[in-house]
Amino acid sequence: MEILLAANAGFCFGVKRAINMAFEAAENCEGEVYTLGPIIHNPQVVEKLGSEGVKSVNDLPSEGGATLIVRTHGVPPAVMEEAQQRFNVIDATCPFVKKAQEDAHQLAEEGYQVVLVGDKGHPEVTSIMGSAGKGAVVVESAEELKDIRLKKRIGVIVQTTQSFENLAAVVTECLARGKVVKVFNTICNSTTVRQEATRELARKVDLMLVVGGRNSANTTRLTTICLDEGKTTYHIEVPEEIREEWLEKVEKVGITAGASTPEWIINGVVEKLKELEKSRATALKNS
Amino acid sequence: MEILLAANAGFCFGVKRAINMAFEAAENCEGEVYTLGPIIHNPQVVEKLGSEGVKSVNDLPSEGGATLIVRTHGVPPAVMEEAQQRFNVIDATCPFVKKAQEDAHQLAEEGYQVVLVGDKGHPEVTSIMGSAGKGAVVVESAEELKDIRLKKRIGVIVQTTQSFENLAAVVTECLARGKVVKVFNTICNSTTVRQEATRELARKVDLMLVVGGRNSANTTRLTTICLDEGKTTYHIEVPEEIREEWLEKVEKVGITAGASTPEWIINGVVEKLKELEKSRATALKNS
Repeated sequence: MEILLAANAGFCFGVKRAINMAFEAAENCEGEVYTLGPIIHNPQVVEKLGSEGVKSVNDLPSEGGATLIVRTHGVPPAVMEEAQQRFNVIDATCPFVKKAQEDAHQLAEEGYQVVLVGDKGHPEVTSIMGSAGKGAVVVESAEELKDIRLKKRIGVIVQTTQSFENLAAVVTECLARGKVVKVFNTICNSTTVRQEATRELARKVDLMLVVGGRNSANTTRLTTICLDEGKTTYHIEVPEEIREEWLEKVEKVGITAGASTPEWIINGVVEKLKELEKSRATALKNS
Repeated sequence: MEILLAANAGFCFGVKRAINMAFEAAENCEGEVYTLGPIIHNPQVVEKLGSEGVKSVNDLPSEGGATLIVRTHGVPPAVMEEAQQRFNVIDATCPFVKKAQEDAHQLAEEGYQVVLVGDKGHPEVTSIMGSAGKGAVVVESAEELKDIRLKKRIGVIVQTTQSFENLAAVVTECLARGKVVKVFNTICNSTTVRQEATRELARKVDLMLVVGGRNSANTTRLTTICLDEGKTTYHIEVPEEIREEWLEKVEKVGITAGASTPEWIINGVVEKLKELEKSRATALKNS
């Protein structure tokens, strides 16, 4: 069985930066260190940070003074302001998400109705919407936009991990209904490159394993891409989930991973596959 | 044989306005009255104006002082300036084209590289390009854009008679390559409505007749739309072109006409069809 790893699988620039900031804080900061929400959408990394004393909290803690890490997805300006008044804030917002927040703010200032293409309720989407002004809407698809009243001047912005096709479809719908449409294509280049590499790999193999947090939007999107290519695909978080029967008659297996999946988990998946392959070979020999 | 006329066939607002201005000028202005280029893309209307003393010229006449009508398609700012210095200018530029010129100017001022979706060499396109700034390009399709170097800030503008699908495809290509894309959807609403009505009618009939100047971009586009619907279609300028054999086995014939086609020609086509139908019925009776 051949094991093929997708190019650009795993940690992106923004995630690497945030994780480093968190481990540094754990080492250097006095007092409690919190992250507001899990720092990235990967339970294994969050657990590891926890063992270093970094606690993930869902709301701003009531007592101030501690160190608070704002995660890659960012927070709305109101939350940031309150946090800065009460905590030593370490802003680990991904610089590309920061840019999207600023672009949304600019569109609102310029009088556009902001349409954000993204997954409702995703923390990145919530953080960008905080700067998107009155009348702003989030849509997950062009289809959804059809039921929404739009102004004649529409500003479009996009969650950094969305697919280009989805953005293009929403923009086309906006064009059909608005007179002026201004778009900031804030899709992160590493997202596009990873998605393309995943698609290419899926075409070449018999089975795809997508590695990453089940709560990770960008990992889930990779799974969708593989399924859209008509490929048998499993989304797993850890190597232990791989089942031997998945590999029956599989000659080539492809691995890809989301932006928040650490290298040690990806390596673990490769090792697990090799191990299963080995035990299969032994079983064949003995039969 | 049933004869069906497309909704919104014939003169649009801008053409009506220009023709009225030209006939008024012929009646009221002293001295020579010129139009710079045929006032609209319909040879029959141009001929009629000629008989009232309005001459179509291709370049600014050398002697000044006369009345010069700027046609619906407009002219670049440099030509307008020279004309205003030497002639009594009547500006019959369609207000929607004027708007597109202003939008192109604004995009250039705001630092965007302007991409104009339009037919190269068409006078409206030439007039808009006059305001589109340095580095501006005209493309007829998204395909064409692939070979062109683009900046990261792209401003898109569109000839008023283009199809929406073409605009959307070009914008999608710009989005894939730029970071900020600002679009003025300057497609004239009457164009869209006429195209939709034509498409709907084409689906219902056995034969389509598209009436209008062979040099008219918007009329030619109507022909393309009917052909794309898989319908037998003839683009004619005058009723006399209709051939009896076209109508054999035809139960329903549809008529549409471009924005520059006068009502008297459309009525002439209807009359001609009725006449041919009548002679066919008589022939059948006598056979």
